[in-house]
Amino acid sequence: MGESTKPARGMRDFLPDDVRRRKYVIDVIEDVYQRYGYQPLETPAVENIETLLGKYGEEGNKLIYKILKRGEHEHTGEADLALRYDLTVPLARVIAEHRGTLPRFFKRYQIQPVWRADRPARGRFREFYQCDVDAIGSTSPVVEVDQLSAVSDALERLGFEDFSIRLNHRELLRGLLDVSGIDAVLHESALVAIDKLDKIGIDGVVADLTSRGIDDASARKVVAAFSTTDTEGNEAIVARLGDRLADHVTASEGLQVLGTVLQLSSGTTAGSRLKLHPGLARGLSYYTGAIFEVAVKDLSGSLGGGGRYDNLIGMFSGEKVPACGFSLGLERILVVMGERGMFPADSTSASVQIMATIWNIDRVADSLALAGTLRAAGLRVEVYPDADKIGKQLKYASTVGARFVTIEGDDERARGEVTVKNLESGEQTSVQRAALAEWLGAALRPSSLGPRPSSLGSRPSSLGPRP
Amino acid sequence: MGESTKPARGMRDFLPDDVRRRKYVIDVIEDVYQRYGYQPLETPAVENIETLLGKYGEEGNKLIYKILKRGEHEHTGEADLALRYDLTVPLARVIAEHRGTLPRFFKRYQIQPVWRADRPARGRFREFYQCDVDAIGSTSPVVEVDQLSAVSDALERLGFEDFSIRLNHRELLRGLLDVSGIDAVLHESALVAIDKLDKIGIDGVVADLTSRGIDDASARKVVAAFSTTDTEGNEAIVARLGDRLADHVTASEGLQVLGTVLQLSSGTTAGSRLKLHPGLARGLSYYTGAIFEVAVKDLSGSLGGGGRYDNLIGMFSGEKVPACGFSLGLERILVVMGERGMFPADSTSASVQIMATIWNIDRVADSLALAGTLRAAGLRVEVYPDADKIGKQLKYASTVGARFVTIEGDDERARGEVTVKNLESGEQTSVQRAALAEWLGAALRPSSLGPRPSSLGSRPSSLGPRP
Repeated sequence: MGESTKPARGMRDFLPDDVRRRKYVIDVIEDVYQRYGYQPLETPAVENIETLLGKYGEEGNKLIYKILKRGEHEHTGEADLALRYDLTVPLARVIAEHRGTLPRFFKRYQIQPVWRADRPARGRFREFYQCDVDAIGSTSPVVEVDQLSAVSDALERLGFEDFSIRLNHRELLRGLLDVSGIDAVLHESALVAIDKLDKIGIDGVVADLTSRGIDDASARKVVAAFSTTDTEGNEAIVARLGDRLADHVTASEGLQVLGTVLQLSSGTTAGSRLKLHPGLARGLSYYTGAIFEVAVKDLSGSLGGGGRYDNLIGMFSGEKVPACGFSLGLERILVVMGERGMFPADSTSASVQIMATIWNIDRVADSLALAGTLRAAGLRVEVYPDADKIGKQLKYASTVGARFVTIEGDDERARGEVTVKNLESGEQTSVQRAALAEWLGAALRPSSLGPRPSSLGSRPSSLGPRP
Repeated sequence: MGESTKPARGMRDFLPDDVRRRKYVIDVIEDVYQRYGYQPLETPAVENIETLLGKYGEEGNKLIYKILKRGEHEHTGEADLALRYDLTVPLARVIAEHRGTLPRFFKRYQIQPVWRADRPARGRFREFYQCDVDAIGSTSPVVEVDQLSAVSDALERLGFEDFSIRLNHRELLRGLLDVSGIDAVLHESALVAIDKLDKIGIDGVVADLTSRGIDDASARKVVAAFSTTDTEGNEAIVARLGDRLADHVTASEGLQVLGTVLQLSSGTTAGSRLKLHPGLARGLSYYTGAIFEVAVKDLSGSLGGGGRYDNLIGMFSGEKVPACGFSLGLERILVVMGERGMFPADSTSASVQIMATIWNIDRVADSLALAGTLRAAGLRVEVYPDADKIGKQLKYASTVGARFVTIEGDDERARGEVTVKNLESGEQTSVQRAALAEWLGAALRPSSLGPRPSSLGSRPSSLGPRP
């Protein structure tokens, strides 16, 4: 019929191995979040359009997928619903709706897809998963430490060894701009230039700043304040900036928060990962305190980031509710893990372990019953559907990745045995039917590297040709 | 600000306990599907609109959520994308796109939400999950048996004891209508009436049939053919219908397939569940062979259903591809399990197990480090964020469902001990810090019903008031 069989632009189908890789990463992240006491939350993919519009700035509004009214209203071309754009605005809505029943501190994680009509690019998709933790209701820096440590644990468990977490504070940023003589109205613009320090260097940023209407002296002051070297430790940065900001009350307070976060983190997995980065700005203007971003060698862009945002959660209720969150980007993590070969061999091996062949058309029920016994023991077993030639059945077993096939010919059946063929080694073994589940379970256990268990009534087999 | 904080109409937020219940059911179903050798597939929530339009009939077209074009095209009011309406059409698209690389028989499961702008009702939502298995590429009745058995296993594992699976065949339906003298053009109409047999009885259906232009004699013949009693066994039904359909070739073949399915199922978990139900029609016109539906006592409507559909999967490629599928409805299963109290106590207990209190502001890092040690042992630990009064901390621990709290006062610390308070019993125990993870792990193990382990250096504690 010639219809397109591609998914929509920027969207992806996930074939079995893709799904298993994604699930492996999600399971690790979820397990770590749970160990930190975060509770799962899920919200609908579709929200009322008013819930989303105006929450992500003008650019965001354009990237929201809007859903046409239905029925008699469809022809109006108006939209009344929209697809979830992030996991934070729905969280704020849920907090307002359920604030009477949620615990005083609400620690939730949410791992769900979001949709943005962005221009597709390498590692950037229009449907992608976010893995968020947020803690609502506390201003304590313990929350920041908790999340930094959780994210460090998750990345370590996934096998990342070379990541660091950049740490900064919104008030520190503001203070450094103030004391460098930059007018508040130019702060946002200056931060765009400062954000390029790693890429275009000191002179480049100074030139950029002056082009934005900042005088040369202030521009040089700013760059000096924001520049750090790889060798300048966190304590040295705190001391240097502390001197510079001594007279700036809010910035000094921000610096003190960062000092506390660093000190409290020292006994956690995050301790060795944290690196003060005074130039870190993070795009989202809703942050009010500490901000973080995960950096990995050889990856432009981050694996995730977050920070404290004390004014956003209350947007639906009108109350001020303190909050801090961290979002890991599943798609970037998958890209890097794929490129570096970081998936453990058994992370994608949840597929079929055993294929039961069919000896002949009158013995189909035997194969089905045998498979049932093995499944009841927790094994993953596919039954070949037809009484095809055994060679054809074995060939198919290989294509689906089965490790073993079972063959129950007439002779074996008479002896109460089943022949098991190892598809990797080609080795065939006769095993007592009653001991088969235990035998296969032992043979499939990842740790069984030694010889096959011999105590279960098995013996080498020479399966003759089928009659 | 007075904005609505409700989810969109017919959609739902899932709070932590909801998510855990959903995940418990999904995990069981997924585990069973995997044991049967089904492989996971995921497709995007959003499809090109042409992929979906015209695939679900005129009624279906109206229920599809359509997404507005973006950017400069937004004002046209035209839609180019749409939300996934079921999991079968995307499967057909994926099969066509990847037919060169997929195995000859492709057995996939897919557990994802779909969206329909249906009128919301009890147990009917606009965003709901389907749990589908489909086997592509084989006409063997082994496939039907495989799926009937998998679904039976899944429902039994979830604790359903009173379900049956109604079984019928499209050609049997057609044949019974033919031999009763119903013209082919009236078949669809007649089936609508027959579908009401359980509700309005024989006389009601006869009246309905005659109102549809079927003469009284034919109407009575039809009803006699389709009526079964609870005591008429499958073999008796096969014999009775076999006589009646002896001269109808395709219907006899259909009946023979059902006989094979029944015979092959007898050694599987589906065996005792299957009940021939000649009046079962299933709405979807795309079925071509066996059809099934799961019935549970006291539930109008089914927990799921499926059947063979040999002409649908090829819709994108133009080839004829045999297929058979079964879809379980997650939302209905959850409703019934909730009403019947079928969730095991520990299915929703993935929440925090332990809360670490904070002794005072100078000892926050100690609590964080202690929590880290316990988490490394796989325990789920929340750290209270502030140095509040201990009573306030304990009260919070109860609200989040923690089973134990840890308290490390000055005295305990001097002795290298931690006080553990069991929030259910109120009992307090002093445990050596180094043995704490092991002690808590043992105390939290579901099977540990007896007294606390005593070999780990614990002793009753009388924690005095905090200084």
